[in-house]
Amino acid sequence: MKQSIITLITDFGLCDEYVGVMKGVMASVNPSATVIDISHHISPQNIVHAAYTLYFSYQYFPENTIHVIVVDPGVGSNRKIVALQTEQYFFLSPDNGILTLILKNHQCTCVEIDRSEFFLSTVSSTFHGRDIFAPVAAHLSKSFNIHLLGRPILPEKLMTISDMAPHFDNQKLIGKVILADRFGNIVSNISTDDLTRIQINPDHACIHIMDQQINGISTHYNQVKTGELLAIFGSKGLLEISINCGNACQKLGINQDSEIPITLN
Amino acid sequence: MKQSIITLITDFGLCDEYVGVMKGVMASVNPSATVIDISHHISPQNIVHAAYTLYFSYQYFPENTIHVIVVDPGVGSNRKIVALQTEQYFFLSPDNGILTLILKNHQCTCVEIDRSEFFLSTVSSTFHGRDIFAPVAAHLSKSFNIHLLGRPILPEKLMTISDMAPHFDNQKLIGKVILADRFGNIVSNISTDDLTRIQINPDHACIHIMDQQINGISTHYNQVKTGELLAIFGSKGLLEISINCGNACQKLGINQDSEIPITLN
Amino acid sequence: MKQSIITLITDFGLCDEYVGVMKGVMASVNPSATVIDISHHISPQNIVHAAYTLYFSYQYFPENTIHVIVVDPGVGSNRKIVALQTEQYFFLSPDNGILTLILKNHQCTCVEIDRSEFFLSTVSSTFHGRDIFAPVAAHLSKSFNIHLLGRPILPEKLMTISDMAPHFDNQKLIGKVILADRFGNIVSNISTDDLTRIQINPDHACIHIMDQQINGISTHYNQVKTGELLAIFGSKGLLEISINCGNACQKLGINQDSEIPITLN
Repeated sequence: MKQSIITLITDFGLCDEYVGVMKGVMASVNPSATVIDISHHISPQNIVHAAYTLYFSYQYFPENTIHVIVVDPGVGSNRKIVALQTEQYFFLSPDNGILTLILKNHQCTCVEIDRSEFFLSTVSSTFHGRDIFAPVAAHLSKSFNIHLLGRPILPEKLMTISDMAPHFDNQKLIGKVILADRFGNIVSNISTDDLTRIQINPDHACIHIMDQQINGISTHYNQVKTGELLAIFGSKGLLEISINCGNACQKLGINQDSEIPITLN
Repeated sequence: MKQSIITLITDFGLCDEYVGVMKGVMASVNPSATVIDISHHISPQNIVHAAYTLYFSYQYFPENTIHVIVVDPGVGSNRKIVALQTEQYFFLSPDNGILTLILKNHQCTCVEIDRSEFFLSTVSSTFHGRDIFAPVAAHLSKSFNIHLLGRPILPEKLMTISDMAPHFDNQKLIGKVILADRFGNIVSNISTDDLTRIQINPDHACIHIMDQQINGISTHYNQVKTGELLAIFGSKGLLEISINCGNACQKLGINQDSEIPITLN
Repeated sequence: MKQSIITLITDFGLCDEYVGVMKGVMASVNPSATVIDISHHISPQNIVHAAYTLYFSYQYFPENTIHVIVVDPGVGSNRKIVALQTEQYFFLSPDNGILTLILKNHQCTCVEIDRSEFFLSTVSSTFHGRDIFAPVAAHLSKSFNIHLLGRPILPEKLMTISDMAPHFDNQKLIGKVILADRFGNIVSNISTDDLTRIQINPDHACIHIMDQQINGISTHYNQVKTGELLAIFGSKGLLEISINCGNACQKLGINQDSEIPITLN
């Protein structure tokens, strides 16, 4: 028998009862499902933030895990809800671009959720997390068959976010800040693959962010002195700007939601 | 065999170890119970906030769920601890008004918790969540019998909070703000039932809050333009003041804990 | 069969995906392990805070619980990772002093983690929580045998934090503030045992903190009037400075991370 694991990524926070209520609904449909929180602190209605958070986490879960992402500025409008299946995982989210990086990296099968017999009997216009996503995910965690949930839709019909990858301009790689974590590490959208493609030697790379220049890419925090700025490929496989035992975000005065350029040459 | 689900509503926050320790105690008594967090971010010692949070969530859980609410300004005094049973659920909380809306809406059986053999062997005067609520809830999740926990007490002897419902004055419905959520939605205590009772057509309703007037009650956020104020019956069944893709609480400069009037006519 | 419980204490916060990803890795290795969060809000890289949080919680969990603590300023350097076994529990953490109070209070067996076949196949230099601690803890929750994880090391070789206990000076007990909780209770490092040792009668004790003097140690919050300062042995067994129905930390203007002296005579 397959193990039922459902993960949650939302912008609901943990102060209100929203996440707990979703778990109550899921326990009512499938008491044996295990629910794992990935993050409920996506910036309100920030689809790009949700897309990256999913991308940094989905592969660390067991096969057949159902990843549910509810960041849904279009709730109550006519935006679709979709379920997507890759070789290893299931995904359930509004059709608003959250699945961009999954669609880009995997062969996908996709359905548009329209089988309302799996919804709560009353569906509000403001909280589909409770009324649609939770019960549908729990049903999927019993059947593992997306085709029971709605009619097929071609993956290329789904909405995607453009401009997520860095671009090249005259020997320079131009990326941007995508988020800062709790430790003040500044995460860019520049991957090791990008570096390989422009054939820059990490030791000789020159990174520019705001008015700072960093020479060379470190492999460990303690390659620079305590309190000093460094560039490092972090645990997400992306270039990060950090301070050894310090907070780079604070030091550079970066606002998490601004898309500050990072260039590398 | 009945499924053992215990939910938690507290004002303990998630920074300290308090909630984790309660779960350790529960796992020691009943390893097979599933514990679901509803919220640990009730404003410290705010009984009204706890009463509403419980009310918005309890019905979304499976039958026989045990709802434990520990918001307990009277800890260490002679306030009672009570267990209450309705047709579908169990509730465990200090006797301080938290159960007001449950008592109002259900036939209840009630006991006063006094069987100290179910408590931890040492009971502190400041953390009954760990020393009494956790072990008693875990025992209840094995027996599902409140009468093992203490002696019967008449439900009408329990403390209740007054003044939770809106009142009518000269054709006007006068309610108040009860909370604001993470999205800045301002939630009032005015329900659809209240509206039916005063026979106001939602399309012609006129809502006043602070110096703002809103005409008509919307059914979807996108019935107004992005950034505009609207009134809508939200997922809790209560009238909310929101901004389409914005934060109404911030815009109106509302402090969550002030009881600002909302009138409707 | 032993029950598999893994607890987590980290400084990862809950905004980023770090904790969820650790749980994904653990579910991949041992799907039947139960993971319980103690706190993810240790001040970034604050080893003393982590050591105390562990000390306040570990005993409330069932026998054989595996306590995993990842507060790891030395990640990527050559600091060791160790597993420790006491009569009742297992502990997994960087060798940086976090286990000081466990080592002081228990007979311990200890290994240095070096069996990389239990790590993720790729180990980053910045996130050992995901790449080493999570999979190793999950393997331990199947075998309950630390000797499979690495080679023995003498407990006295482990790093410890000095200066955690209060000291005596001329009939005075001189302790310090170790943390403030969500309610603004100020927790000191002075235990009931310390008081016994200096033979002070709690009723006649005189406590000094900042410019305040408190006479006598209370046993219940409501022994003083609402809004008044008191000293009380709290649920951690340590002397706390509190305000009945108020926030002592705010009132005294204490910054959580400053080590303010508390004297008692």
